Amino acid sequence: MRIPLDRHSEIPLYEQVQDYLRTHIVAGQLAPETRLPATRKLAKELGVSRITIQNAYANLESEGLIANREGSGAYVLPPVQMQTAVTDSSSHQWPLWQQALSDTTAKQLTTSLPSHPDTISFTGVGDPRHFPLKDFQKSLNAVLKNEGSAVLEYGEMGAGYGPLRETVAHILASQGIQTYAQNVLITTGSQQALALICQVLLKPGDVVLVEKPTYNFALNLFRTLGLEIVGVPIDEDGLIVEQLEPLLQQHHPKLLYTIPNFQNPSGVCLAGARRRQLIALAERYNLPILEDDFVGDLRYNGRSQPAIKALDPMGQVIYVGTFSKMLMPGLRLGYVVADGPLFGRLVQLKQVTDLNSSPLIQHVVNDYISVGRYQSHLRRSIRRYRQRRDAMLDAIKQYLPPEVTVIPPQGGLFVWLRLPPLLSALALRPLAAQAGVAYAPGSWFFPEPEEGEPYVRLNFAVQTPDRIAEGIRRLGRVAEEAAVN
Amino acid sequence: MRIPLDRHSEIPLYEQVQDYLRTHIVAGQLAPETRLPATRKLAKELGVSRITIQNAYANLESEGLIANREGSGAYVLPPVQMQTAVTDSSSHQWPLWQQALSDTTAKQLTTSLPSHPDTISFTGVGDPRHFPLKDFQKSLNAVLKNEGSAVLEYGEMGAGYGPLRETVAHILASQGIQTYAQNVLITTGSQQALALICQVLLKPGDVVLVEKPTYNFALNLFRTLGLEIVGVPIDEDGLIVEQLEPLLQQHHPKLLYTIPNFQNPSGVCLAGARRRQLIALAERYNLPILEDDFVGDLRYNGRSQPAIKALDPMGQVIYVGTFSKMLMPGLRLGYVVADGPLFGRLVQLKQVTDLNSSPLIQHVVNDYISVGRYQSHLRRSIRRYRQRRDAMLDAIKQYLPPEVTVIPPQGGLFVWLRLPPLLSALALRPLAAQAGVAYAPGSWFFPEPEEGEPYVRLNFAVQTPDRIAEGIRRLGRVAEEAAVN
Repeated sequence: MRIPLDRHSEIPLYEQVQDYLRTHIVAGQLAPETRLPATRKLAKELGVSRITIQNAYANLESEGLIANREGSGAYVLPPVQMQTAVTDSSSHQWPLWQQALSDTTAKQLTTSLPSHPDTISFTGVGDPRHFPLKDFQKSLNAVLKNEGSAVLEYGEMGAGYGPLRETVAHILASQGIQTYAQNVLITTGSQQALALICQVLLKPGDVVLVEKPTYNFALNLFRTLGLEIVGVPIDEDGLIVEQLEPLLQQHHPKLLYTIPNFQNPSGVCLAGARRRQLIALAERYNLPILEDDFVGDLRYNGRSQPAIKALDPMGQVIYVGTFSKMLMPGLRLGYVVADGPLFGRLVQLKQVTDLNSSPLIQHVVNDYISVGRYQSHLRRSIRRYRQRRDAMLDAIKQYLPPEVTVIPPQGGLFVWLRLPPLLSALALRPLAAQAGVAYAPGSWFFPEPEEGEPYVRLNFAVQTPDRIAEGIRRLGRVAEEAAVN
Repeated sequence: MRIPLDRHSEIPLYEQVQDYLRTHIVAGQLAPETRLPATRKLAKELGVSRITIQNAYANLESEGLIANREGSGAYVLPPVQMQTAVTDSSSHQWPLWQQALSDTTAKQLTTSLPSHPDTISFTGVGDPRHFPLKDFQKSLNAVLKNEGSAVLEYGEMGAGYGPLRETVAHILASQGIQTYAQNVLITTGSQQALALICQVLLKPGDVVLVEKPTYNFALNLFRTLGLEIVGVPIDEDGLIVEQLEPLLQQHHPKLLYTIPNFQNPSGVCLAGARRRQLIALAERYNLPILEDDFVGDLRYNGRSQPAIKALDPMGQVIYVGTFSKMLMPGLRLGYVVADGPLFGRLVQLKQVTDLNSSPLIQHVVNDYISVGRYQSHLRRSIRRYRQRRDAMLDAIKQYLPPEVTVIPPQGGLFVWLRLPPLLSALALRPLAAQAGVAYAPGSWFFPEPEEGEPYVRLNFAVQTPDRIAEGIRRLGRVAEEAAVN
C-alpha cells in the first residue's frame, strides 16, 4: 500500500497513515471487508517503525472504522452513518491545461427518456436470440484447450491473426470482392477501422464528404477529430453522384465516406452506374473512397451490385467490413481491405493504438467461421429478417398515418421513414418512450441535425413480427396524438 | 456474389462472368471446395439470364477449374499447375494521395534473425505457464451461462463496464492510490490508454518529455503521431528531476511520460523526494504528467513510494494501469484514471475510436478478479519472480564479463545491463540468436537509438532459474567471442 508520507511535516507519521486510511475508508475506496496489510509488512513498505502503524490502526479501531480479528489481521468495517465523499467537480480549480479542454467537449446526443415496463425497441443490429452462442462457446473452449495460454499472450501484432485474415479474404471472395490476406487488417470492430483510416489520411479542418443521412458514429468520429463534414444528398439509388463534382471543386475533400449497400440509416443501395461514375470521379479528383459494407450480403430481393472496391484496380477504394452485424457485435472484430502504401501505414497506426485486437477472440472467430458456415448463417438470417422487414412494412401501412413515406429496403436492417409535415422525430421520442416504443431519431444521422427532424430509423431485425406490429401500432397512436395537439 | 458486369462492353456477359471466376480461382481467392452459387440464384442476383451463367460454368468446367457434383451444385477444384497471382506492388502506379504516404512510412525496428532449435528468450512479460487459465475459463463459461448473448451485444459504451470500473478502483485503493469508479476508463490494454491521452492532448510537432531509456511502444506511438520526443536522463533513483527545469523552459513540452516504478526497461524506481519535486514542477509549468504504472506492485524488496497520482489533488496526473502484466496480456484490458474535463474527452475519443472494449472480456475479468484474488495472485507472482531475478543476477555475476554493469532491480520484470566498452547490443543480437538466446537491444528504448547501443534488456520473469542460468551462460560466450574479434 503506497501511502504518501511527508517526513518533513509537523503532523506525526502515525497520524498521516491514519488520516490517509480514514479518508479512503470513508470515501468507500477501501471497501468493507478489505483486509489491511499486516502492521509489520506495512511498516517495512513505508520505511517507518511498526509502532507507527500500530498506533494508526488502534486509533482507527477506536473510531469504529476497522476491526482486528484474532489471528487474521485488521479489516475495514461497513459504514454506519458516514458522510459520502465530495466528488463535485464543478467547484474544483483544474490545472490550466485542463481548463483549455472543457469548452470543446461535444454535447451528448442521448438524453434520458421516460421508461415503460414493456418497451419494444427498434434500435440495435441483429437479434441476440439468434446469436450462435452454443457454437461460439464450443469454439472458445476448443481454442483454450488446444492452444492454451498461447492465445492469452500478446500474440501476433501487426495486421492480425494470419489464418483469420485468410478466412476474411475467402469470405469476401465468395461475395465477389477480390482481396488477398496480405491486404486484410483485423481491427476492433469496423469503428476502429474508420478511426484508423481517418487518422492516417486526415487532419483537423480537412473536409470529408458523407451521404446525408449517414451512420451516426461515423459522424461522431469525424466531429471528434475536428473534420469539416459536407453532406451529399441521396435518393432511392443512393448517393446522388451527379451532385458530387461541384462539391469536389468547391471543397477539395480529402475523403468520401459511403455506405453503398442498404445504407445506414436510409436502407438504399447505390446503383451500379453510379458506382462506376464514382470511381471515375475519384480518380479524376484524387479522392480516396472509404466503402463501409456493414451488411452488404443481407439482401432479401433485387439485384446485387459489385462492391466499389471490386471496380477499382488502382487502390483508390478502402473497404471496411465487420463481424458485428452478421455474427455478434460484442466480438468487436472488423477489418479493412486496403492496397498500396496506405496498408502499411494503417498496420503501423493499429499497432501503436492498441498493439493488437484480442488474440483469444481472433482465434475463436477463426475456429468458428468458415466460408460454408458464413454462407449458411447468412441464408438463415436472410430468411428470418426478410419476414420481419415485410411485417414492418405491413404494419407501417396499417398503423401509421398515410402521409408517412418510406422506400421499402431490399436488404439490411433498417426502415427509414419520413413523418407527416410538422412532426419532429426528436420531439416525439419522449412520447414514444412513454408509450413503450424506442427508435433512432433522424437528426442523429445528419451533418446538420435539424435536417433530420422529420425522419425515423427503425431496425426491423431485432423484434419478432408480432412485436413489430405492436410497436408500430404504438408509434401510430403517438403520431396521431401529436398531430392532433 | 457481386460480380462487376459491364453491360456496354463488347465482351459477352457470360465471358465476363467466366473471366471473373477464373481470375479468382487461379489467384486462390475462391478456395478449393468452395461451392459456387446455383445458376438460377446467381443469374437473378446479377440480373442476367440463366443461360449466361450456365455457359460460364460449363466453360470453367471444361478448363478443369470447377466440377459439377450431382444434385449439389458446382465446386471449385484444387489447383493443378496454375500460375500464382501477381501481387508485386512495387511496379504499381498508386493514386496520387497514396504516393504521398509512401515516404513517411516508419522503418521497421525488427529484423529477421537466425533461428536456433532451443531458443531461451528473455523477452515478453509474465510466464504463460502460470497464467490462471483454468479459473479464467471457469469465469468465461460462468459469464456465458449466466448472462448469455447479452455479453455479445454492443454493451455499455462510454467508460466501460461499471462493475469492472468499481473493481479497478478498489484494487487501486488497496494499493494506496485514491480513485473513484467514475474516474476510471477501461481501455484495450494500456497502449490504447497512452494513444487516447496523446490524441486528446497533443498535436503533431508538440514536444513530449520521456525518460531515456523508456518503453519502446510508447516511443513508437509518439513517433507515429509526429510528436517531438525529448529525453531526460535517469539514474538509479529514476528520472533526474533536477535536469528537468531547463528542458521545461527550453522546449515547452505538452506532456511528460514517466514510468516511476520498476521502469521499463531500466528497472529503477523514482525516489520519493523526486516525486514531490516533479509534482511541484508540473504545477509551476502547467505540465500534464502521464504516469504509466505497468507493474508497480511487483516489488521484491525495498520501500514502496506513493503513486505520483496519489500526491496530486489537482488533476495534473493521468494514471495508466493494465491487466496485461499481472494477469494475461492477451486480455487486452487496461485503464486510465483521470480527473477533470480531460476524463470526458478521453471517454468521448474512446467511443469513436472503437465504441468499447469487448464486453465479454470485461465481464469475464470482473467475474475472475477481486481485491483478494488480485492480492493473492500478486503474492504468488512476487515469490516466483523474486527467485528468478536473483537467479539472473547470480548468473550475470558468474557468466558475463566483469565489465558488465547492472543496477539490481527491486521489482518488476527486467534487468537492464550495460555491455563492456565497444560491444553493441544490436550488433550482437544475430550472434546471440545463433547461440539460442534472445533479448531486447537497448537502442529500441532511446529517442536517439544509437545512445542505446551498449545496453541490453533482459526479462527474468518468463524463464525458470535453470533456463535463466543457461541463457546467460550462452550470452556470456557470445560476448566473449565478440570481444576477442
